[in-house]
Amino acid sequence: MSGSKVQLLLTGNELMTGDIVDSNSAMMAQVLKDIGLSVNRKVTVADDLALLVDEITYMANTSDILIINGGLGPTVDDLTARALALSIGEELTQHPEALAHLTHWCQQRGAELNAPNLKQAILPKGCQIVANRNGSAVGFSVRYKDCDIYCTPGVPHELKVMLKEQIIPTISAGLPLNLITDITRLQVFGIGESSLQKIINEQLSDWPEEIELGFRAGMPLLEVKLTIKTQQGLALKSLWKNKLANALGDHLIAEIQGKPKPLAEHLINQLQQHNLKVTTAESCTGGLIASKLTEVSGSSAVFEAGFVTYSNQMKTTMLDVPQNTINQHGAVSEAVVIAMAKGALTKSNADITIAVSGVAGPNGGSDDKPVGTVWFAWGSMANIQTQCLLLPYNRLQFQQFVAAIGLDLLRRYQNKSNTIPNYIVERAFPDK
Amino acid sequence: MSGSKVQLLLTGNELMTGDIVDSNSAMMAQVLKDIGLSVNRKVTVADDLALLVDEITYMANTSDILIINGGLGPTVDDLTARALALSIGEELTQHPEALAHLTHWCQQRGAELNAPNLKQAILPKGCQIVANRNGSAVGFSVRYKDCDIYCTPGVPHELKVMLKEQIIPTISAGLPLNLITDITRLQVFGIGESSLQKIINEQLSDWPEEIELGFRAGMPLLEVKLTIKTQQGLALKSLWKNKLANALGDHLIAEIQGKPKPLAEHLINQLQQHNLKVTTAESCTGGLIASKLTEVSGSSAVFEAGFVTYSNQMKTTMLDVPQNTINQHGAVSEAVVIAMAKGALTKSNADITIAVSGVAGPNGGSDDKPVGTVWFAWGSMANIQTQCLLLPYNRLQFQQFVAAIGLDLLRRYQNKSNTIPNYIVERAFPDK
Repeated sequence: MSGSKVQLLLTGNELMTGDIVDSNSAMMAQVLKDIGLSVNRKVTVADDLALLVDEITYMANTSDILIINGGLGPTVDDLTARALALSIGEELTQHPEALAHLTHWCQQRGAELNAPNLKQAILPKGCQIVANRNGSAVGFSVRYKDCDIYCTPGVPHELKVMLKEQIIPTISAGLPLNLITDITRLQVFGIGESSLQKIINEQLSDWPEEIELGFRAGMPLLEVKLTIKTQQGLALKSLWKNKLANALGDHLIAEIQGKPKPLAEHLINQLQQHNLKVTTAESCTGGLIASKLTEVSGSSAVFEAGFVTYSNQMKTTMLDVPQNTINQHGAVSEAVVIAMAKGALTKSNADITIAVSGVAGPNGGSDDKPVGTVWFAWGSMANIQTQCLLLPYNRLQFQQFVAAIGLDLLRRYQNKSNTIPNYIVERAFPDK
Repeated sequence: MSGSKVQLLLTGNELMTGDIVDSNSAMMAQVLKDIGLSVNRKVTVADDLALLVDEITYMANTSDILIINGGLGPTVDDLTARALALSIGEELTQHPEALAHLTHWCQQRGAELNAPNLKQAILPKGCQIVANRNGSAVGFSVRYKDCDIYCTPGVPHELKVMLKEQIIPTISAGLPLNLITDITRLQVFGIGESSLQKIINEQLSDWPEEIELGFRAGMPLLEVKLTIKTQQGLALKSLWKNKLANALGDHLIAEIQGKPKPLAEHLINQLQQHNLKVTTAESCTGGLIASKLTEVSGSSAVFEAGFVTYSNQMKTTMLDVPQNTINQHGAVSEAVVIAMAKGALTKSNADITIAVSGVAGPNGGSDDKPVGTVWFAWGSMANIQTQCLLLPYNRLQFQQFVAAIGLDLLRRYQNKSNTIPNYIVERAFPDK
């Protein structure tokens, strides 16, 4: 069953209207991935008998494993059992094991076993029951035309337990032992997808075909993924992962284990290791950098205070930025962000800081300082660095990008990095 | 084209592995529903050329409108243009309009137009360009076998703008004129879906069937939707909308026109009208409330400064919270949030404020103040109100919910509201 074709069929009107976002299929893909299987197609249809029969028939013929999710409930629009029975040419019949489950379920809750509930025990003849200890609907499975078909409930926590305790162990037991799927994910920032592709084409042009390369552009982090499915690939992994890591240099933040960590978390871990404290002095981001730091559990060890100095007056009151400096250079200027950085370090007793002042727009731009202009100052009292960028995005994107760059500049500062990130190469304000 | 068959095809390895949850298809379904169209099938496949060609061919033959999402990027795993060209039997060629867009896009950013980027201008011959003002990848459309096929980018905000500004108006223009779909959307906060349903059952039990009621639970805002498809329904609209608005009282924030406005924007508009200034004093939210206020364009008129006082020491240094008060009551206490609120008003010269201090977790809870405990203080110097809630969510949800409640408390304060919101009814900390 190596290279098994796995497909998912999701059913439910609520999935078609956009009223809910489907997270069940991601959950199924994750647990299947854990046993080395990948989903190669998924289909979502409304609660429509003819459509369901068509899809089940086609999918059973083109896959080794088909998981159907949803449509097991007591109401008339729950059609999975009927559609499956029609697709495989079996009649519907009351299943004793399902009836026992329902009877027990209702007894436990002091409820009457009514007609809608009873419908949940009417299943395709010959199917196997997949127990559900969290809900009234049992799951069930059949083998048809060399395809194992599992029908599962749409309620996420019922599905999750059923997958973990029953379906995944069953599927796993049928897999050959030598099946490999090894995935390595790298988190990078400060290099675009096309620049990365160029580096690989130029510096790593003999990249082995046993290691499949994938990219995922996020905002702001990019993920690079190495997928290996053969023993030959595994043997090459360490060498080529290191080559890629070298080519990425300081753009590489970390190898991802489990859920990707936000940029702020990496920075906070770095600071904790060096027993350093950080503070923020924010104008155009209005507290966003501080909030990203404090989203991280444990941030209190390295972050004590942040200054949101949105008006000119408050830059002076809260951070001792000289009124004169603001008058002379304007609030969006190198002199002002340096003074903000120094003020924040002094007032908070922190070791390093990031200060930002910019024109978030859509109003407030000028010829000299158009919307998207932003000055950064960062570092320690003895070593403050500055940069002006032009980030021509809408207000929210501008703020998110400025916050991410601010955190990345601190990360690179801590790393003593001398690689220039693409946001400086491509976005440095020409005359500043 | 009433009763048009609409299908969606989503492509991307990241959608198959479960690494990300697809929210694009829900977004597409929502905007299509707004013009009276429903999606009847959607298929998701990995970045695999043969699979894509099969799906496109089948879907184009079985639908009137097909929207393909994803696979427009510069890298080798972006295959949509190639797959579409093969499916419809056209060759790939450099599209002058797409090239112009890419050239302009790179120029604006001072970047070089490299080979991977250039790939984004190689499109099926004869296709129409769908402009993308937020990204490098243009969209494109073709008409094939009576099916309008639109190819769209996977990045959600690029997709959203493209749908709104171009694709939906184009599709809509082709729909018959006598089709009515009148949708009214109300934004509410501080009332749950089940409480709302109860109000409607009890106070508006004769709700007319010509007006379909729908709910969409968001975090934190709830959307109530009235959908009308007949002339009789239109005639009843104004009366019943007003009845519903009366029943909702202060829980109703606004009728939504276009894109829903965030809570902070409503508050800022209120404050602007009354020429009042607001400040924030944040501990457990770490700058999130300030950042939500400053996300709003024009917030500088009402917001000058925010204080992120994360440590005890900085509550004293920045906001003059007496050391003694912290020692005696702890940082998460009524006395401390009152002192934070007063300190913030004094230091910033603002008229009203919101102060929060809580246990965001996962660590730091105690028997007396478990994780999820949060104290709010809000109002003006002459009238500071307080409330303790227990919000037992994970760290990020807790911070988001506290920020939303903080903004809503200020909104209700400005409205002189005396309706008690459900987050107080249901989550008030029993003994505080």
